[in-house]
Amino acid sequence: MQPRVDIITLGVPDLDAARRFYLEGLGWTAVFDVAGEVAFIQIGHGLLLGLFGAADLDADVGDPRREGPHTPSPPMSLAHIVQTEDEVTDLLRQAEAAGGTILKPAQRAEFGGFHGYFADPAGFRWEVATNSGWHVEPDGTVFLGPVGD
Amino acid sequence: MQPRVDIITLGVPDLDAARRFYLEGLGWTAVFDVAGEVAFIQIGHGLLLGLFGAADLDADVGDPRREGPHTPSPPMSLAHIVQTEDEVTDLLRQAEAAGGTILKPAQRAEFGGFHGYFADPAGFRWEVATNSGWHVEPDGTVFLGPVGD
Repeated sequence: MQPRVDIITLGVPDLDAARRFYLEGLGWTAVFDVAGEVAFIQIGHGLLLGLFGAADLDADVGDPRREGPHTPSPPMSLAHIVQTEDEVTDLLRQAEAAGGTILKPAQRAEFGGFHGYFADPAGFRWEVATNSGWHVEPDGTVFLGPVGD
Repeated sequence: MQPRVDIITLGVPDLDAARRFYLEGLGWTAVFDVAGEVAFIQIGHGLLLGLFGAADLDADVGDPRREGPHTPSPPMSLAHIVQTEDEVTDLLRQAEAAGGTILKPAQRAEFGGFHGYFADPAGFRWEVATNSGWHVEPDGTVFLGPVGD
């Protein structure tokens, strides 16, 4: 697994409050915005900041918060975007072999891609996903459009 | 405040376990590593992942976890590095005006720079800091060396 974060998703209790702070307050611009659901802000070269409901994030992970070596996951996730479904499967296997815990096995994602989640030993969640709507220009600008087949 | 994250710091309960997972397990390389204290991994263009004790992070913030509109902060922080002390002061003021909460007013940092922390409405912590040891090459490679005066 390459050392790369593509999206930092903050799981917030109040998405409207997060939007007011980041978009209106700090004046940052969303590159992809579905009111009441999610907003993504370009926050670095090839890097997005996602604002997402904490409960929606938990539901997407399907995190069982089961008994085990892991503390409950902090309300956030880091996403690692790959090109193929095989990579999703392989990287989740690598993460598990490295001592991570699979929270969601590789599967079709609700947003249209193919994804899974693992947790590091502290419970931090990583999503590994394909996303056909994801495109990064050479200058680092991210385009996030509709996910096709 | 420019929309830019320079460091994603994960506050972990067991730094050795985090090091084993990311450095040994996933085979990622630390660009700056002080065993038992902190490790930084290049995780994107101009972007580092920091592994830091959760208690050490709390102590650095001096987060009073006071009563108020904010939930307790998740065990992580996002760092925004600037060139001057005046920028640190100005950006903390902007964040407060935008609806953020100042957790640590601008001041000399233990690591040698000048910094402060604010929380977004969900409690996510942002550090705004100068760091004379921070240098990013045009290709995005981060060099993090000793902090000078």
